[in-house]
This record gives sequence, structure tokens and C-alpha cells, in this order.
Amino acid sequence: MKMQLGMIGLGRMGANLVRRLIRGGHECVVYDVNPEAVKALAAEGATETRSLAEFAAALRPPRAAWIMVPAGLTGETVSALAEHFAPDDVIIDGGNSYYRDDILRAASLVERGIHYVDVGTSGGVFGLERGFCLMIGGEPGVVARLEPLFETIAPGVGTIPRTPGRTGEITQAEKGYLYCGPNGAGHFVKMVHNGIEYGMMAAFAEGFAVLDKANIGTTSAEHNAETAPLGNPEYYQYDLDTTAIAEVWRRGSVVSSWLLDLTAAALQEDPGLTEFSGRVSDSGEGRWTVLAAVEEGVPAHVLTASLYERFSSRGEGLFADKLLSAMRKQFGGHAEKPAG
Amino acid sequence: MKMQLGMIGLGRMGANLVRRLIRGGHECVVYDVNPEAVKALAAEGATETRSLAEFAAALRPPRAAWIMVPAGLTGETVSALAEHFAPDDVIIDGGNSYYRDDILRAASLVERGIHYVDVGTSGGVFGLERGFCLMIGGEPGVVARLEPLFETIAPGVGTIPRTPGRTGEITQAEKGYLYCGPNGAGHFVKMVHNGIEYGMMAAFAEGFAVLDKANIGTTSAEHNAETAPLGNPEYYQYDLDTTAIAEVWRRGSVVSSWLLDLTAAALQEDPGLTEFSGRVSDSGEGRWTVLAAVEEGVPAHVLTASLYERFSSRGEGLFADKLLSAMRKQFGGHAEKPAG
Amino acid sequence: MKMQLGMIGLGRMGANLVRRLIRGGHECVVYDVNPEAVKALAAEGATETRSLAEFAAALRPPRAAWIMVPAGLTGETVSALAEHFAPDDVIIDGGNSYYRDDILRAASLVERGIHYVDVGTSGGVFGLERGFCLMIGGEPGVVARLEPLFETIAPGVGTIPRTPGRTGEITQAEKGYLYCGPNGAGHFVKMVHNGIEYGMMAAFAEGFAVLDKANIGTTSAEHNAETAPLGNPEYYQYDLDTTAIAEVWRRGSVVSSWLLDLTAAALQEDPGLTEFSGRVSDSGEGRWTVLAAVEEGVPAHVLTASLYERFSSRGEGLFADKLLSAMRKQFGGHAEKPAG
Amino acid sequence: MKMQLGMIGLGRMGANLVRRLIRGGHECVVYDVNPEAVKALAAEGATETRSLAEFAAALRPPRAAWIMVPAGLTGETVSALAEHFAPDDVIIDGGNSYYRDDILRAASLVERGIHYVDVGTSGGVFGLERGFCLMIGGEPGVVARLEPLFETIAPGVGTIPRTPGRTGEITQAEKGYLYCGPNGAGHFVKMVHNGIEYGMMAAFAEGFAVLDKANIGTTSAEHNAETAPLGNPEYYQYDLDTTAIAEVWRRGSVVSSWLLDLTAAALQEDPGLTEFSGRVSDSGEGRWTVLAAVEEGVPAHVLTASLYERFSSRGEGLFADKLLSAMRKQFGGHAEKPAG
Repeated sequence: MKMQLGMIGLGRMGANLVRRLIRGGHECVVYDVNPEAVKALAAEGATETRSLAEFAAALRPPRAAWIMVPAGLTGETVSALAEHFAPDDVIIDGGNSYYRDDILRAASLVERGIHYVDVGTSGGVFGLERGFCLMIGGEPGVVARLEPLFETIAPGVGTIPRTPGRTGEITQAEKGYLYCGPNGAGHFVKMVHNGIEYGMMAAFAEGFAVLDKANIGTTSAEHNAETAPLGNPEYYQYDLDTTAIAEVWRRGSVVSSWLLDLTAAALQEDPGLTEFSGRVSDSGEGRWTVLAAVEEGVPAHVLTASLYERFSSRGEGLFADKLLSAMRKQFGGHAEKPAG
Repeated sequence: MKMQLGMIGLGRMGANLVRRLIRGGHECVVYDVNPEAVKALAAEGATETRSLAEFAAALRPPRAAWIMVPAGLTGETVSALAEHFAPDDVIIDGGNSYYRDDILRAASLVERGIHYVDVGTSGGVFGLERGFCLMIGGEPGVVARLEPLFETIAPGVGTIPRTPGRTGEITQAEKGYLYCGPNGAGHFVKMVHNGIEYGMMAAFAEGFAVLDKANIGTTSAEHNAETAPLGNPEYYQYDLDTTAIAEVWRRGSVVSSWLLDLTAAALQEDPGLTEFSGRVSDSGEGRWTVLAAVEEGVPAHVLTASLYERFSSRGEGLFADKLLSAMRKQFGGHAEKPAG
Repeated sequence: MKMQLGMIGLGRMGANLVRRLIRGGHECVVYDVNPEAVKALAAEGATETRSLAEFAAALRPPRAAWIMVPAGLTGETVSALAEHFAPDDVIIDGGNSYYRDDILRAASLVERGIHYVDVGTSGGVFGLERGFCLMIGGEPGVVARLEPLFETIAPGVGTIPRTPGRTGEITQAEKGYLYCGPNGAGHFVKMVHNGIEYGMMAAFAEGFAVLDKANIGTTSAEHNAETAPLGNPEYYQYDLDTTAIAEVWRRGSVVSSWLLDLTAAALQEDPGLTEFSGRVSDSGEGRWTVLAAVEEGVPAHVLTASLYERFSSRGEGLFADKLLSAMRKQFGGHAEKPAG
Repeated sequence: MKMQLGMIGLGRMGANLVRRLIRGGHECVVYDVNPEAVKALAAEGATETRSLAEFAAALRPPRAAWIMVPAGLTGETVSALAEHFAPDDVIIDGGNSYYRDDILRAASLVERGIHYVDVGTSGGVFGLERGFCLMIGGEPGVVARLEPLFETIAPGVGTIPRTPGRTGEITQAEKGYLYCGPNGAGHFVKMVHNGIEYGMMAAFAEGFAVLDKANIGTTSAEHNAETAPLGNPEYYQYDLDTTAIAEVWRRGSVVSSWLLDLTAAALQEDPGLTEFSGRVSDSGEGRWTVLAAVEEGVPAHVLTASLYERFSSRGEGLFADKLLSAMRKQFGGHAEKPAG
């Protein structure tokens, strides 16, 4: 069934969602604060609008609008759009919202009879071709109404082998989208997804770092009271080709994964990683996953450590490090060693 | 080019390597302490032998023998076999040896002119069909001589898309095997592979545990001076279907991976994980990876935490936990709360 | 200057605070839901009251009342007491409240002109003799008014040597109490104090566990494909006396501390820690410290790991552990090893 | 009983040991590669020697010599000294040796009938006045012979209250020295002591970092797709005085400890820690403690994390961080954010 969807926010993600929907035969009404972005998609078949009012007017009731703006702007966009919406219309937040905000927003919209659906969307820059993995929260009936849209956006069954033990009709999950539960459930699942992503990325990063230093025994280390000499330099004499290692693990190994594919591509492009300074951003999901683990009382050493390593990469451990140096000076008279 | 290889150790891994080689047209001579295992493979086309002497005699010089026995037995097997081997013969250790043992073994064999090759082998029970990912250490010329065998055992290029940026001839790594460097390099790379595997597994396990507890707000927790009440039960009201979530992430998400495929299969088979008690073994590689990280001075929070979680799963944290309870009793008069 | 203070909540902490105040010459009005507790302190010189109304009536305006009840009951107690209080009266929360609740409570009381002071109180069962360390938040003028009470409750300068570099008049902090800032600041500082306490306790617990297992090389471990044999049993042959070690570290070592004193006492009492099962409670402060670290973007590996170890001690890692076993079975066909 | 001891290595630690022994009435023969250091102690009453031969000749058989040189030089010093020693003489290593080296050295000396004693020595720059905490490994009879020396070096009972439950005669441990077991046991216990020290230091450093950032809500953070806005800036408005907080915790709190005393002194001296860059050294003990934890199969999240934080403080996480940035660029097109 072909449907109509409005899209607010035509950044890379929003634009690619629209393109996938248009290719799938759906009708898209688009709006963005940047008129150029609107025009670009209009040229690809979307309906151009120049204000939220015009956007709402171009949609047929019951309306369905998808908001894809930075997390910090979602709240105000939802509120502004609601002014133009009517009972039984649906507002979908496909961005990286905190699931708790979903619960609050849904509760405020319900007073006007407007439905709210939260959709965690994974896929990155490859989503246009691969499809986007969708994790959905909201009222079941409302989500069901939107299913043709989700089915088009999602990757579909594709060439991925069916999980052993699954029989019968293909389920939602096997097509790449999933109704997870009431409001917030979609973003909750997406949040944990990203928490896992941080942990997997860190596992690779640490492992490759151990490979990268496998030749540490070939360099002469300085000996002094502050630093123990490497006990067994003869065991650290390997100059390993990390690019080739990433590549070989793509085939038949236990760690084969999309993140490994990307690692292999990154190392192929720049084996010395010379273009990076190592300051790693973290968006909210990693933090929220840790907050949830702590509140649930679930040990999550790995997910948390991967988050903290990102903090440290941006120098956020500096105060603690300085205090350690200060303590060492106090008890041992140890002066800090210079960086050189 | 078709070759001859001897295989010692016909457990699941060894037997499947032989099967893959026979299917690839190579000739295999086999030996195991268990005569039944030998007979079984003889029935599939391998040459049966009943002693190491017979095994060595059945191989044409320069001989090539692959040892695939438990790590604790490899050393004595190599020594015993060397008694029957001659200069320029090759002994391959394809098991889970510590790379430092490779260095020592190679050094002791070189005195007799026997070559030693260490091969880290990944693939598990699926290797027979998927092929095994091979990480190889040894003398370059000797490894090159064995390349037709490695090429047959490895998965080959298969249907995996070529890494962007790679052009020209297909490399070893793209076929699923890699010469990594001098003796020990193969097992060093395999060791780190398994270290990463531990980290990835823990990332999934922790993330799914956070999902599993997302309904914690629906149960009434007890209030007392020792345990803080859950501040916001309204945010933990989700009964999530972890089986479906594992499935949906297989398509289009950032965490898609072979380990996720297995997780989906495991949850499909037994959503409540009722058949497991949660005692997780660790073979040596995870430990050795941490030892290497420490000696190299590389921070590896995630890999280490995933190892320690396995220790804890087996009750190895008990002494520390008891001591914490004892301290709490001392300073606060806190009695331990019973498990119920 | 001698003052009057009301105390609500006569558990161990509340009762000891009253005792210390009475010994210091202050007048105490007491109330508790348990009349026996009230009578007991009345026998020691406190003024008995049998309802909040009577309690409020017995206090001279501007009243000062200290609430020392379990964290889950503080909110309702503050509200109930406020019904009987008048403008310029002061309510002090000396319990283990979340500092955010302080901010909310102070804001709601300010509408009635009632002041709110939050006091983080450390000292445990030893506070009666040692004095309690007080971390205080609220309006500066109100806190100043209560200073004679804080000075009596706190340990005072005692025999602790003055910190090098400090000169001139003795400060609040040197007497064992500190005005930390506006409402919530007292409990914020106390929260981090407990976070550090968790980390220190875990450092001791882990270290003693390493000592306790120093004889692991004397026991024969089983060899199998799942568990690597201990490489160097000759290095783990020590039967260490952890009780004596705790004792010797109390003198002249870098780790000497009150927690070590308690550890020494605990091991002296029960060297095998036989009376403990190892289920370690966590009250809110450790969790809140981690939440603050995450929101502040400060890496706090140690504080967080010590919290998670407590979760694990109570079996909260079980789901994750089971999933690891399930994955291992999928990829390696590894059956779980029984506990025996 | 007054004894004679030879000391090799007159750095700060060695010199202070000699001074304490001389004050205690013992006779000291001293040697150092730096003749100025020898002269300085000769002026304080020690016997000057100018070569190992002269040193050995000045000692009465059975000789007792204490070596206090950097860990990297201990092995060769022991060997050189043994050339001048005779059966039943004793060589004591009081430095920061790896306990495994003790075992190897003792085994090689035993062939000549020379005894070896390993002594872990804690006390830092304060040891001269406070006394040094001694952890001792070796043959029981040999250690017993040296007990008068250990008793003089150790702090003695001092003003530290006796551990509750201890009765009867004062033990070694209560005087500040302890015979721990056969060779290596002394350094093993000292190793774990330092591992705990790392963990405690990190607990303080992380906690103070959380305090230091408690005003993060007062600064406006940038909003973008990469960084989540701080959800609740109103809860992070505290400008805390970390110097005063360290001071107040010294009295009556659970975290009171010598390390806290030093932290208070360090912050008093330089509240902004302006003289430190935050590059924290690690000597061998922290690493060896982690290696032991891993080999023993004991979870040691806290001790390990504190070690890794030191690695990170020196930039050792850079490769991993760069790889994370590279992966993020691949899957999300995320450019790294500049440091500014």
C-alpha cells in the first residue's frame, strides 16, 4: 500500500529516508529550515513546502510526519508542528532522542489527540542502499497503520540467511523493523544498540592497538626507578600489518561484522590513521545506556569502559591524572616525567 | 597444486580440516590416539596410521604435519613427532598455543633442521562449510611452500564484497589466510582475535541484559537503608522481546555481525536461556591478550573487563565480595542481606 | 553557644547524634515512630515527644530540626514536619538523600519561608566516639546560625597532624565540618565521598583476593580445551596470612587508612570470612556518583567498576553470563562446564 | 641486639634506611657507585667503602648486605656482590624487584650457600621518621637472624590503636614488619600493596574529578548532532572547594587515610594542580599485580582500570582512539571535532 509521509529535517539521514520512500512509490512532503535542502529533494520528486503551516496543509488527514532533526531541536519541533496538527494525526520522531523525552512528549500530545511514535533508526550513510534498521515505540494500532512506510525504509529480508529454527511466515524483525512496545521503547532499544556499538568498537580499537604495539620489544626503553623495564623484549618483535589483519578476519572468523568491514576500509584508506587526532565524540545513547544499567542494577563494565575511553580521548581525565601526579610527588617525591 | 598433509588430532576441528582438504583434492594422512577417530576419517578417504612412526613413514619428504590437539598436549606431541621427522620437514601447530611457546618450540626444532609453523585457526563448528580463517607465523619460504593447503582450508573470497579502495590482484588476506610474520606471529594475531571476540561478546551480553531488565519498574522493590529505591520506575516499564530485537539488528544496523547472528539463533532456540547456568569458561587467549596489553602498556579496559566478567561468572570474585561484606559490617554494622 | 535541636529518627545514627549533642551541652527534643526509641533517649536527657505536633511545639522558634530517617522516607517526613513549622524555622536532612531531592525540597519549602539544610554525615557506628564528618549545603546565613551544633557533632581537630602548609586560624574543615555551597552541595559531596569509599573498598578486596589465591600453583588444575593450564605454577606457591598482612600494612605503608584498620579487624575476627556469603548491598550514593560522572563526562572507571562488582556479587550479571554461554555453544559447540 | 649491616645503594631510600639503623644503634657499612653519597653517610656515622671488595671485607661473617638500587640494576648487583661473599652470608634485596626474579636469584645463590632475602619496603620519603613497613620473604631461620634490623627499620607499634580482638604478645605485624613466606613472598605482598595503592589513588582522583566538574551546568555547552546537551544543567551548579573537602574528610570520614592526608597537602600547596601535566608513571608493581590477577583467575577490575588510566594519561590510548574516529567516519561520515 502506498502512503503519504511528511519529513521535517533534510540532513543526510532525513534526505535518504525520503529517497528510499520515493523509490518505494510513496509520496513525500518535505520541509527544512534550509530551503536549498527542500529544493534538492523536490527535484527528486518530493513535494516542497516553505513553512510548517504549508507542510501541515499539504498532508492529508490523518497526517503522518517524521521529524529528523538534531536531538537538541526535536522537542521544540514537535511542539511547533503540533500547533498545526489535528486529532488522530501522527508525529514520528526518528532522531536520537532520549527515550524519556518520548514518554513526556507523547503524554503532552495525547491531550490533543495527536499520536506520537518514536523510531530508533540505524544505518548511517549506507542506509540509502542497505535500508535502515527501525526500532519502533508507540500505540500498536498507530504503528500498524504506518507499517507500509516502515517496510519500505527497512532493508527487508535481503540475502541474509534465515536464523536457524525460524519457520513459517517472515516476521517484522526479519524484514528489518520491529514494534518494540509503548512510547519510548523504540528509542530505548536504539539506545542500547548504540551502547553495544560503543563496546564493539572499543573491543576492536583495543585489540588493534595491542597488535600495533607488538613490536615494542624492538625499541630500547629507558630504565629508571619510575618505569619497569619490559621483562621479555624477545616476545614483542612483530611488525604486524593491521590492514591485512582486518581484511583476513572478514572471512570465516568469529569477529566478522560490519564494524570490521568498516575497520578494514578505514585502514585500507589510511593505514597510519594519520588524518585523525583521536578525539572521539559521544552522542547521548552511550551515556543513557550506562545510566540505564546503573538504575537497573545491571553490571555493564564493557559498555561503560568504552564510554569512558571516549571521555578520556578528549582530555576529560586530565584533572584526575594531575591529582595522581600530585599524590605521587607527595609520597614519593616523584617528579613527573616529561612527555619527550 | 595438490599436496599431501598429515594431521594429528582428529577432534572436531582436526577432522573438519581433513575433510576440507580432501574435498579440495589434497591427500591426507591421519593419526589420533583414538583409533575410532582415525577409522572414521579413513572411511572418508584419508590414509589411516596407527602410530607416530607409521604416520611419519606414510608422509613423503619434505613432510608436512599439522597438529591439532588440546593446548596442554601440543608441546609433548611436537617433541614426540620430531623424533620421527628429518631436516626440512615441517611441523604445523594449528591449535590454541601461547605464541611464546611457538617461539621456544621453533628454536628447539631449528637445531634439527625441522621447520615450525604456527597457525591460528578460527571458524568453530561452522568452519567445514564456511572455511577457516588462518593466521600464520613462521619462515616465509616454508609458509609459501604450504600455501596450497592454506588456500584450500580458508574460506576464499566468497560473496563478501571487496573492501573499498582495494584494487588489483586478490591478496592472501582476501582469501582468508595471512602470513603474519616470524614464529609466534600467527598465534599472536589469533590471540588478539579471541581477545576482541571476548569484548564483542560481552558488549552484546551486557546490552541484552539492559534490555532484559527494562521492566524493572513494574516490580515493587523493597525500601530500606541499604538499598536506594528506584528513582523513576515509570521509565522502566518495557517488556522487550530480546529474541526479536536480536533478529531486527541483523539487518541494516551498525552491530550486525556473525556473533549477533549466533545470538539471534541462541535466543530463537531458548529465549529464556533456561539451559544455561552462566558459568563461562575462558581459554588462554583472553588472558594472554590482557598480559600482552599490560606488558605493552596499552590500555585495554574492555578486553580486560570481559575476561574478568568470565572469572566472576565462575564465582572467582567470592573472596573479594565476602571481604566487602566484612568491611561494611565493621564500619556500618550492616548485616548482609539474604539472597531471598 | 548552647543551642536546642530537634531530632526525628532515632536509629543508630540519629541516637548517636543526640548523645553527642547532649554530651556537648546542647538541648535535644526527640521524636521517632517507635516510642521505645524515644523513651531510651529521654532517659539519657533528651526531651520526649509523641507526635510531630508535640515535637514542633517543644521547639523554640526559630526552630531547628534534624531528620535522620531512611532515604525512602525523608520526603514525606519533611513534608509532614513542614505542616507544623513556621517561617524562619530550619529543617535539616542528615540522611542519605539524593542531592537532587534536596534542591526540589528546598524549593518547595522556600515558599513557606522555611529553610532547608542538607548534611552529608559520615562516621558509621564509630561516630559517637570519633565524631561525625559533616558536609553541609544550604543558605550561608542559616548554616552559620547552626554552626555550634555542627561543631559539637564533628570530630574536632583531635590528634590529627595539621596539613603541611596550613597556617593561621583553624578552619571549619579542620574541625570536621564544612559548608560546601547551596542546597544539595552537602549531599553531593557526601555522595562522591561514598563513591570513593566504594572504590577504596574494592581496591582492598581485589588486592586481598590476589593474595588469597597466591597458592593456586599448589593445586592441580584440570587440563582441557576450554581452560588453559596455569603456565607457571612454580610462581604461585605462597600460603599467605592475610590477617597478618592487613595488620602489617597498618604501620608505615602507603595504603594505611581507616578502611584498612577495619579490614584488619574483620580478618582478625574471622580470617576465613566464613560468616559472609558475599552479597554486597549498595545504597544510592555509589550509583548517583556514577550518574554524575557520566553526565559530567568524567571518566570514572574505578568508581564504576566497584559499583558493578557489587551488582555482580548479588547475581545481577546472570543474564549476561548465560548469554555468553549460549553464544559459545553456538559458535564452538562448547557445553557449559559444571560448577563442580 | 645490635647488628652490623652493609648497604649498597644510597639513594633516598637506602640512605634513610642507614640513618634509621644508625639511630637505632646498629653499625652500617655503606657503598654506592657515587662516592659523594658514601661520604655523606660516612659523615653521619656509617663506614665508608669504595668498592664491592672493600665493602665485603668490611663486613663480619656471616655477612648481611642490603641492596637498594633501581630494579633494572638489582640482578647484576646481586651477581657482582656474590663474587665477594661466602657461604652463610645473606644478600637482602629491598628494592622493587619482581618476585619471580627473587625466586630465580635465590635459586642461583643457593648453589654457593649464600642466602637471599627479599624485602618489600614501603614508606616513601616519610620512612625516615615514620619507619618503613617491611614485607619479607626467604628462609625462616635466616630471616629470624636479621630480625633486630627489621625491628629497627619498621615503625614499631607507635600510637596506632591495637586491632580489636588482638590480645597477648605484640606480633611482628603489629611492629610493622612481617615474614611472609619463602623467597619472593615479600615482594609478592609488596607488589599487591602497590596494586592496591594504585586503586586507592584512582578512587580519590576520580572522585575529586567529579567534584571539580560539579559546576559544569554553569557553562553553556555546544549543541550538535555529535554531542548530547547536558540534560539537567540545574543539577551541576556547584563551585566546590576541593582543598577544603580533602581536609574535612581527614576527620571522622570513612575515606580517611594516609593518601587522603597527602591529597589534602597537595591541594593545599597547589589547589589548581598547575604544576602538573598529568602524565602518570607506573613502576612495575601495578602491572605485575594485574598479571598475577589474570593468571590466578581473580577479577580485578579496579586495580586494572587504575593501571590503564595511567597508561592513558601518557597517551598510550592514542592508536585506539584514532581507530574509533576512523570507524565513526566510515559508518556515519562523522568528522572529528577539533580540540578547541
